[in-house]
Amino acid sequence: MLAHALFDPRRIALVGASSDASRLTARAQIYLRRHGFTGDLYPVNPRSAEVQGERAYAAIEDIPGPIDLAYILVGTGQVEAAVAACAARGVPLACILADGFAEAGPEGAALQARILATARAGGMRLLGPNSMGVVNLRAATACSVNAALEAEGLKPGRWSVVSHSGSVMGTLLSRAAARGFGFAKVIGTGNEADLSAGEIASLLVDDPETDAILLFLETIRRPELYEAAARRAHAAGKPILAYKLGRSEAGAALATTHTGALAGSDAAADAFFRAIGIARVDMLDTLLEAPPLFIGARPLPAPRRAVRVVTTTGGGGAMVVDRLGTMDIATAKMVDTTLAGARRDTVIAALNEARAAPDSDIAIAVIGSSAQFRPQDALAGVLGSTGPHKLAAFLLPQADASLRLLADAGIAGFRTPESCADAVRAFLDWQPPRDPPPLGDLSAAAALLSAAIDEPGARAVFAALGLDDRAVRIDPAAPPPLAYPVALKAVSATIAHKTEAGAVALNIADADALKAACAAMSARLGDAVSGFIAQPMVRGVAEVILGYRHDPLVGPIVALGAGGVLAEIYRDVVLRLAPVTEAEAMAMIAQVRGLAPARGYRNLPRGDLAALAHAVAAVSRLAGLAAVAEAEINPLIVLPEGQGVVMADALIAAAPAGER
Amino acid sequence: MLAHALFDPRRIALVGASSDASRLTARAQIYLRRHGFTGDLYPVNPRSAEVQGERAYAAIEDIPGPIDLAYILVGTGQVEAAVAACAARGVPLACILADGFAEAGPEGAALQARILATARAGGMRLLGPNSMGVVNLRAATACSVNAALEAEGLKPGRWSVVSHSGSVMGTLLSRAAARGFGFAKVIGTGNEADLSAGEIASLLVDDPETDAILLFLETIRRPELYEAAARRAHAAGKPILAYKLGRSEAGAALATTHTGALAGSDAAADAFFRAIGIARVDMLDTLLEAPPLFIGARPLPAPRRAVRVVTTTGGGGAMVVDRLGTMDIATAKMVDTTLAGARRDTVIAALNEARAAPDSDIAIAVIGSSAQFRPQDALAGVLGSTGPHKLAAFLLPQADASLRLLADAGIAGFRTPESCADAVRAFLDWQPPRDPPPLGDLSAAAALLSAAIDEPGARAVFAALGLDDRAVRIDPAAPPPLAYPVALKAVSATIAHKTEAGAVALNIADADALKAACAAMSARLGDAVSGFIAQPMVRGVAEVILGYRHDPLVGPIVALGAGGVLAEIYRDVVLRLAPVTEAEAMAMIAQVRGLAPARGYRNLPRGDLAALAHAVAAVSRLAGLAAVAEAEINPLIVLPEGQGVVMADALIAAAPAGER
Repeated sequence: MLAHALFDPRRIALVGASSDASRLTARAQIYLRRHGFTGDLYPVNPRSAEVQGERAYAAIEDIPGPIDLAYILVGTGQVEAAVAACAARGVPLACILADGFAEAGPEGAALQARILATARAGGMRLLGPNSMGVVNLRAATACSVNAALEAEGLKPGRWSVVSHSGSVMGTLLSRAAARGFGFAKVIGTGNEADLSAGEIASLLVDDPETDAILLFLETIRRPELYEAAARRAHAAGKPILAYKLGRSEAGAALATTHTGALAGSDAAADAFFRAIGIARVDMLDTLLEAPPLFIGARPLPAPRRAVRVVTTTGGGGAMVVDRLGTMDIATAKMVDTTLAGARRDTVIAALNEARAAPDSDIAIAVIGSSAQFRPQDALAGVLGSTGPHKLAAFLLPQADASLRLLADAGIAGFRTPESCADAVRAFLDWQPPRDPPPLGDLSAAAALLSAAIDEPGARAVFAALGLDDRAVRIDPAAPPPLAYPVALKAVSATIAHKTEAGAVALNIADADALKAACAAMSARLGDAVSGFIAQPMVRGVAEVILGYRHDPLVGPIVALGAGGVLAEIYRDVVLRLAPVTEAEAMAMIAQVRGLAPARGYRNLPRGDLAALAHAVAAVSRLAGLAAVAEAEINPLIVLPEGQGVVMADALIAAAPAGER
Repeated sequence: MLAHALFDPRRIALVGASSDASRLTARAQIYLRRHGFTGDLYPVNPRSAEVQGERAYAAIEDIPGPIDLAYILVGTGQVEAAVAACAARGVPLACILADGFAEAGPEGAALQARILATARAGGMRLLGPNSMGVVNLRAATACSVNAALEAEGLKPGRWSVVSHSGSVMGTLLSRAAARGFGFAKVIGTGNEADLSAGEIASLLVDDPETDAILLFLETIRRPELYEAAARRAHAAGKPILAYKLGRSEAGAALATTHTGALAGSDAAADAFFRAIGIARVDMLDTLLEAPPLFIGARPLPAPRRAVRVVTTTGGGGAMVVDRLGTMDIATAKMVDTTLAGARRDTVIAALNEARAAPDSDIAIAVIGSSAQFRPQDALAGVLGSTGPHKLAAFLLPQADASLRLLADAGIAGFRTPESCADAVRAFLDWQPPRDPPPLGDLSAAAALLSAAIDEPGARAVFAALGLDDRAVRIDPAAPPPLAYPVALKAVSATIAHKTEAGAVALNIADADALKAACAAMSARLGDAVSGFIAQPMVRGVAEVILGYRHDPLVGPIVALGAGGVLAEIYRDVVLRLAPVTEAEAMAMIAQVRGLAPARGYRNLPRGDLAALAHAVAAVSRLAGLAAVAEAEINPLIVLPEGQGVVMADALIAAAPAGER
């Protein structure tokens, strides 16, 4: 069974083990022994009958009996042979330390593909390459070369970690130890040729020793496995928290070269985590400090986005309140217990009131100097309080003993006002895995798709999805009756920027002017023109960009942004996993800042937001059409309430044939 | 001398000292003795001949010889008498612990004003009230009740702290100790009835034991003293770093109730720090970790806003790069030394190259697990490197011994990728104290000011400052020759929203239409109309809000924002201390995101940015006119290049008579 091999291997082969303690390849054996591994170790080394005083085997084949896990420590060039030998030997899981695979370029990627094929053919699962291995602190199994395992007596805990980065495994182990806690399982997935963090998270949902799952991610591979894990985690009441690199383009680029991942949009990753119920934190320390806020809790159905603060120091409380305020999280009330005397009963009374207050979601206790010198006294009130709301504690001084008391009590303790605020924000943003709405019947839209869709074609697809298309094809010789004035546009497969090319004419007053405009365009643009469309001129209260794309990491995404250059200049675009319901679309509309006027800001005339929500939901149904790579209505003009929305331009780009 | 009394008092009176170790009033004496104070202590207590085994005095008057510092520990109600006694006794400096003064409401404020008057009359300076006292670790003088002084053997250092918050004094002491360093002086200023953080910072500039000055601020009182301190600090090559509460409105409101401060705009505070050369950090830990980046450095004349990273771990480096990227700070190159072997020579070579690279401003070393277990080895390369660029080190694991080595070597060591990035950002934003441009001759503008200025009056003032006013007063009976079409506006002291009131008419085609429009407005608005102005219709490439105000905390501020509702919706406003030069105005223009189109974004037509810069500089000269509280041109229409800017509306509000 995979979980057994991964989390609790009892018979481990160390392929390429070394007696030279200064070498990386020696470390797994050293650490397994140091941390008290009680199973069987089989060092494999063709040049030595003993490794580190233990009997060694010349080859994998020589090991007697079954092997749960082979940790392949050999250099990149020898990995292929080692994988083949393990697969031939019937090993269920091999973990590969070496790097130089997909992250190193096309040759490495080819090598990675070959070892994956070999493993698959032999029914063997792979962890890595570029994996720092597997640590199970509850079973004294430190099968890893991570230097953090130099530490003696690492404390086992009830949270498990899956990390793309091996070094960050060590970072988390050492930082947790300093805060007085440890982990259940810690797994480094590296390049994820086979096993991904998402699949391992699913296994951890079933692990009775794991209460929370922490992910350190550099990219997202196989999003469907994350979604399955998150859904099962939600059902099991186990939170999943993620720190993911790639907030900035530079970071995303680095992360991709680092483990050979694809770059996707970070906003799409955000939308993905949110949709599937994974809480994303923004700071590294938050990943370690936030879990107790989530454990035993459920996503709040209607968060008030407000906290109450009980503090023994005005300045300390203000730091947290200030930081939360920058995230638009209000402080309903702050009680300073300094004057009242920060006695246990006083603090308990204040915290119990705060934890039951209907005006807020979370209570925050802020503790000053006493946390450093009298942890028991300082925390007596915090540890004694109860109430329906979760409790977070921020400690102003360096106060490791107090952090330990909090960890033991299962209360989230924070070292900085920033990580405290980040955790509260992540908790309030946390949502249950969503149930995507049904895609409905897409056959009409699908029938209209082709490899090269022009604007009328795109409009027809959008109309089939449920949008109102007010444009009609025009025969320049005999235009149909129209509600003048109208806008005229040449249809063309080759003209990219129609306004600049003179392929658009506005405010055409009557049929004669329309004929003249068509003639002028034909004369100017010649064969580039394949037809004409016209639609009545309208005056909207807002313009938006409504887009759809298949993100390379997380899949179908619908995007709604402020119109014109605003979306780009102000990064004012809201993304969701597609498809969305009209209610979700309405929530997106509420988040586009540039739509404030259309929402009635300063008594400006309201736009037809119901029609806009309908359009967003309709476009998001493209998620069911694999032939569509990208689509955009830009601008979509939002008319006054009750008057609908109007497509001013429409575009659909087909996916490359192989990806449909 | 004030510095002597504040930093190195040798004869200290403890007014209201107690023998009851559980009481706050006992602590100053306990801590002074615990940390080895070698001067003379004079406990004052009318009910006891001995306090904590030392001879006590019934009253201040009974103490023989001069007193350097009196720490007044009595309750709020007894402070007034104690201050009077100290002043009468010729004490040069009294520090007051009690709260319940300006922060507690009008009565407390009145009491605070009385004790200040008493002190001033007696030639005595005050620290506090609400002050946690004075700590000089280099002279073993712990004259404070702060519980952080429970710690034994606090290490003296060469940075000094001034903090509004007493509890944060303790926070910084304990967090510094955990990082292996300490401070020279630590002073709590509380309510700052007299001595402010700015004035104390100036004293610290002259302190030979202080290399850097750290400020924890809840507000800004007496900005001119900060400016003087910053200017002198710059001359002396001593950086000043500040963490200031009030980023959010909630935080600002709390901070003001906490120490009785006025609320100003945080953006104005940012502009203030920037202008005077104080580096503002965003996170608490940064205040402690950043100073070595600044010590021995000068603000960069033309920062490239780029770093180089040398890392022993790809994931760790990516965390810093990613965070910097979100702040628009690029990583010119990242070198991963893991494969090359993170040996001393390899790392030194990589760091020396990074520290001399012309493509970047700062080198960042990122160290993995080795920092935890082999600090000397891990840091050998970092400690051995040299080069013109400053060096920052981020340690992935919990690695206190390594942080200590870095502190001893004067290298900035960071515990989190976030504080590392925040420090780099603060360093790149750091500027020398600016020399404000001369205000020029303001007599013409001053002569036009009055208590109630209408729009033509405001336009005249702006014209006197150097703006082009294209509006003319209209006699409805005989309008002057105009370049039609024009916009017409009724002049009125009472109509606030002119468009809504029908006091504006656009696109008036000729003189007859103008007369008719005037007549219609007169009929509609009656006595509210005191005249008419008209100006030619223009079509701009952008609209901006150009504003001026006297910020309650930091004084004259000029603001440039995107026009319409964008400034508010997107918070797209750039502030500077007024007055500004045209070059500074151009830098402001470059920072207004909504002006991207007018700057030529996507080949959109450029606006007359030179004329806009001229207008910004001109309006900023209002700083020389104390009679003006606020002024705004909204919108100011930016015409195409070479065509100037046009005021569409203008407003000047006079300051209340008492404040001119």
